[in-house]
Amino acid sequence: MTRLALAFDLGGTELRGALVESGGRVVTQVSAPTMAIAGSDAVIGQIIALAGDLLAQRPQADVVGIGIGAPGPLDPKAGIVIAPPTLAGWHDVPLIDILAKHFGLPVRLENDANAAALGEWRFGAGQGTGSLVFVTVSTGIGGGVVADGHIYHGRRGLAAEIGHMTITGEGDRCFCGAVGCFEAVASGTALGRRATALTAPGDGSLLRRLSGGGDVSARHVVEAARAGDISALELIEVEAKWLGIGFTNLLHLYSPGLIVMGGGLANGFDLLAPTIRATVEQRAMPAYRDVPIVPAQLGDRAGLVGAASLILWEGEPGAPLAMAQDKNSKDGPTERAAGREASHR
Amino acid sequence: MTRLALAFDLGGTELRGALVESGGRVVTQVSAPTMAIAGSDAVIGQIIALAGDLLAQRPQADVVGIGIGAPGPLDPKAGIVIAPPTLAGWHDVPLIDILAKHFGLPVRLENDANAAALGEWRFGAGQGTGSLVFVTVSTGIGGGVVADGHIYHGRRGLAAEIGHMTITGEGDRCFCGAVGCFEAVASGTALGRRATALTAPGDGSLLRRLSGGGDVSARHVVEAARAGDISALELIEVEAKWLGIGFTNLLHLYSPGLIVMGGGLANGFDLLAPTIRATVEQRAMPAYRDVPIVPAQLGDRAGLVGAASLILWEGEPGAPLAMAQDKNSKDGPTERAAGREASHR
Repeated sequence: MTRLALAFDLGGTELRGALVESGGRVVTQVSAPTMAIAGSDAVIGQIIALAGDLLAQRPQADVVGIGIGAPGPLDPKAGIVIAPPTLAGWHDVPLIDILAKHFGLPVRLENDANAAALGEWRFGAGQGTGSLVFVTVSTGIGGGVVADGHIYHGRRGLAAEIGHMTITGEGDRCFCGAVGCFEAVASGTALGRRATALTAPGDGSLLRRLSGGGDVSARHVVEAARAGDISALELIEVEAKWLGIGFTNLLHLYSPGLIVMGGGLANGFDLLAPTIRATVEQRAMPAYRDVPIVPAQLGDRAGLVGAASLILWEGEPGAPLAMAQDKNSKDGPTERAAGREASHR
Repeated sequence: MTRLALAFDLGGTELRGALVESGGRVVTQVSAPTMAIAGSDAVIGQIIALAGDLLAQRPQADVVGIGIGAPGPLDPKAGIVIAPPTLAGWHDVPLIDILAKHFGLPVRLENDANAAALGEWRFGAGQGTGSLVFVTVSTGIGGGVVADGHIYHGRRGLAAEIGHMTITGEGDRCFCGAVGCFEAVASGTALGRRATALTAPGDGSLLRRLSGGGDVSARHVVEAARAGDISALELIEVEAKWLGIGFTNLLHLYSPGLIVMGGGLANGFDLLAPTIRATVEQRAMPAYRDVPIVPAQLGDRAGLVGAASLILWEGEPGAPLAMAQDKNSKDGPTERAAGREASHR
């Protein structure tokens, strides 16, 4: 019987769950609006209920563990969700312990951007690459770095907070308090803000017609640009320049073999790509210019299948990801993991 | 008999060699001006000659291998120096092969900033830390990242090119062609340039008196600031702000346990530290603010002892650094390395 993982992608607005096969195929999927304001007990109750729904749909399933992607900051080794801005009232919640006790299954936790990076690396745009940087560009900008074959965690799992890399001295103040964060100038929110400032309700512009007169979003800009709207194309150009500056930094700092762009704005990747590429060619040192920059392939499923792979891909369920690959083979389960991993490639 | 490594620090202006013990002690040291303009054969001849001098001083030495720090870009695994700007005529020089054949010893190669990072991590300011970012601030800005217990190499060994991280849209154009590189605004060169622009020959300022009327260097600024000169203190303040912005990025991106600042400007670390720290406190997200930022301890010996540790610290001499720690213990030499490493800690 096929081994399956229960996978959860815990977002501030939506909680999604799935049963996933080791090859990355989603067998069945469910979701619910996250009861974020009701606190951690309520949301953990939702996870347990969704798991029940999934298992009821596949009563014969050989479920070997639970993988979860959740908003950071979190400590993946300790299994603790520290204090995500999007989940009110979560403070040092020992999510792994709670769910492991309830289900009697191994549980593993990773921050959502890292889970999506893992998903794209193992099953999506990054297959076969030894190292990649995954950048998610939507409301904010997040990232995950796969280096030398494993997620780059850093102290307390806090590496790759790329949205708060300073890339300029201009622009609106970031919600974090600093000026010039990558996220503050290059997120979908920033693009929408520029589009809103450029237009006015009732001005007859395509952007405002698409937005129904309200604030213009990044999605409206992409849609208007596809229709050939000049203002929208200029906004895309500015957006792509900021992305190109940030991506160049990521090349210089992490030297990945690939950059994968996901998030809502990846829907406009084809429009953004020429100027992103031109900016990188202009700013990156020569040795970095040939690194491919590609759109994500898995869309919003990247996080789910990446979370599932925490269980299905590594050896010892419950062992921290980096350790599973760093340990030597005296630890039997890890040795088995190495063999299993090879067979999946 | 104590095992020794031959270590070389190959700079564009000075070539230094040493015999180093496994504990990091330099037993004997020699140097020569690098014959950089004479090409790679001449410089390799110098390395061989210096090695002869060192071995003549310790004819009984048990030399187990050769470690070299050289300017990047270079490929540490392939052992090839690619095309360093400071070494004219070097193009894809297979330095490991050439020296291994000549000496019949294992040879390992690392870029100079990474070698210095290793030195500080193993024998200097970073002892006992699992991860650190080493930043060298002098003519330019370079760096090396130790993460999860090994040097972070990235594709072709090109990670941590931190001097060319864009942090602003202002300032003079960097030699690399871009505007806003960390190096272009925060290197010792940039500090000297600002001091030179602020003063004029014969204006009676302390800065110009120290420089003998010529261009003011970072060293003069530090010296004048120590004497309480107001202009110099203001220049130090601006310099420290730029460093603080760049260091904050390094915290967000790599999440190290420690930042170690080396290079010529580390001589003024005590003057710079308060504003560096204040800038980090102001700009970094809360979870990163408590990371210590400390001056390097080994000065210009960091690269030499770090290069030596490529041979003395890892197991299998000649094995790439990262691989020595990632392989599992079926590889006998690596297992021995793990044991040896533990005994050195």
